[in-house]
Amino acid sequence: MKLAILFGGASYEHEISIVSAITVKGKLSNFDLSFIFCDQDHRFYLIDDANMKATTFSRAKHLKMPQLTLVKGGFEQRGLFGSKMHMLPILNLIHGGDGEDGSIAALFDFYGVSFIGPRKEASMLSFDKHYTKWFAQSMGVQTLPYEVITRNNSKTIATPYPFIIKPSCLGSSIGVSIVRQESELAYALDVAFEFDTTLLIEPFISGVKEYNLAGYSSRGEITYSIVEEPQKVEFLDFEKKYLDFSRSAKVTEAVVSDTLVSQLRDAFKILYTPLFEGALIRCDFFEIDGVVYLNEINPIPGSMANYLFEDFSGAINALLGSLPIKKEIRIQYDYIHSISQAKGK
Amino acid sequence: MKLAILFGGASYEHEISIVSAITVKGKLSNFDLSFIFCDQDHRFYLIDDANMKATTFSRAKHLKMPQLTLVKGGFEQRGLFGSKMHMLPILNLIHGGDGEDGSIAALFDFYGVSFIGPRKEASMLSFDKHYTKWFAQSMGVQTLPYEVITRNNSKTIATPYPFIIKPSCLGSSIGVSIVRQESELAYALDVAFEFDTTLLIEPFISGVKEYNLAGYSSRGEITYSIVEEPQKVEFLDFEKKYLDFSRSAKVTEAVVSDTLVSQLRDAFKILYTPLFEGALIRCDFFEIDGVVYLNEINPIPGSMANYLFEDFSGAINALLGSLPIKKEIRIQYDYIHSISQAKGK
Repeated sequence: MKLAILFGGASYEHEISIVSAITVKGKLSNFDLSFIFCDQDHRFYLIDDANMKATTFSRAKHLKMPQLTLVKGGFEQRGLFGSKMHMLPILNLIHGGDGEDGSIAALFDFYGVSFIGPRKEASMLSFDKHYTKWFAQSMGVQTLPYEVITRNNSKTIATPYPFIIKPSCLGSSIGVSIVRQESELAYALDVAFEFDTTLLIEPFISGVKEYNLAGYSSRGEITYSIVEEPQKVEFLDFEKKYLDFSRSAKVTEAVVSDTLVSQLRDAFKILYTPLFEGALIRCDFFEIDGVVYLNEINPIPGSMANYLFEDFSGAINALLGSLPIKKEIRIQYDYIHSISQAKGK
Repeated sequence: MKLAILFGGASYEHEISIVSAITVKGKLSNFDLSFIFCDQDHRFYLIDDANMKATTFSRAKHLKMPQLTLVKGGFEQRGLFGSKMHMLPILNLIHGGDGEDGSIAALFDFYGVSFIGPRKEASMLSFDKHYTKWFAQSMGVQTLPYEVITRNNSKTIATPYPFIIKPSCLGSSIGVSIVRQESELAYALDVAFEFDTTLLIEPFISGVKEYNLAGYSSRGEITYSIVEEPQKVEFLDFEKKYLDFSRSAKVTEAVVSDTLVSQLRDAFKILYTPLFEGALIRCDFFEIDGVVYLNEINPIPGSMANYLFEDFSGAINALLGSLPIKKEIRIQYDYIHSISQAKGK
């Protein structure tokens, strides 16, 4: 099965996307894989198997590799004696900006390139944590209470200490702080505003139970991963998360009741269908007093959450066989025809 | 001043985009204009001035004109003896899908092409009427109550008759019906579901006052158009709207109180800033018992609402001088460097 892994991107998560791609490569050894790197200047390069290592990119060796141009139907590789088309399904593994904000989805949809990953609309609703709240609430899935602040109104925080400050549009814990008292606030705001103009404030609940569940839909059926209880650190900072993105060993299933598994799956299904079709996503939940709360939706989880699936390669294969197709609009020029006929032209 | 007008698109509003472009061409005669047509297959063509008429496209004559490829920085025109770059600011005049759903914005942002039009996020929030409701409500701007229905749950409408059915993601009144009694419902649903999978139901208020206000921001200041009270038809059907998109004669200002003008402008400003920067938008409002309600946001209004501005060409010029620039992310490879150093590689 042919598949191209797209990674990199002009994103704060550029480096973890490289790590993710290398990890996923190792887990899809039965595929006929290609690798397409998107650099920080939004140029695409075809990377050969032997060069799929982190230093290729950190040392800018990719600049010597074949450049690709996205055109109708796929990627074009121009040469001295004509051009070659790469028309492969793509696994979008660009985390954060570009990959998860809807840009790549818009490009691929526009050019008719088939891909695994969230579509434009799904991307937008999961990329901005503020919109994720609107979306989850409208679907009847609980979320923690929150406030939105911008640089101009940051003095009006009503949430009592301790609280978490998160940049609205970043993943991988970048720019996130727990603020326990007023003296810590200014610094935490400075850090978060480095990355985004809008921040979310949520109450910080010490010792809250967290559960992650991944899944995807193929031919109308959702396949769920095992439920994971992520390691007990207050939250993952960037360096820990960076290592986290290279995870490839299957994790131990969380010891949870059947009731909780059902609750998590029900919430997942409500959020996933039909918006996230075509993607393998991971939803991170809290559980408080028997109620499940959505924390966030990762529409392109680190290393595709391979470690949560019994048969990861089978999952990717199933997704490839069931990718959404954009409805074509055929234009008949009925109005222009009728007007030009009326004019006698 | 150089400017390229982009029009067409794979959209139900393809034909009215052509009409819009021809109209705007007539209103910007002091510009050095180019014309880029996006056909229903998402191919771009450079159209010369003499061919800027509706029959060029309805008779597929554009297929003989130079094809353009979107690349980093602009549109590339390939020839036998090398290629030529068209690096111009673009006026996005693709109505509906592609132009207003965030696709074109994502493409231009990705490739660093400067353009007049809503950015990706602004597009998404205004394109889907359901998201527009969330957005307006979160900003404290009133909207009419509504229900969302999909094909599978359309039997549960709670709104009393008469009500309006609208496809969630279409403009120009396409697929819209007023339903006065149950006998009309099935047909109205059929029509609307032709165009979209999600519909909005809103109460139909006979004789409600409607006011349209356009505007744009340049160098931090919003310039408002005059307030228009659109002609009293219950709503514009597609054919009337089609003619409406060719409007170029300045309309008469609505006779309204200063209080109402302030209310409309205040609501406009709240919605516009900062999300719609870079665009000239038209907001359509209702007024009921002294309260202003947002009906919809047109982020690329028909013929750019030129007929609402005293100095339309000056408006486009001011916008061009103040287009938002996407923040660049520079990647340092700090983590990969530190890891490869630790490994001694």
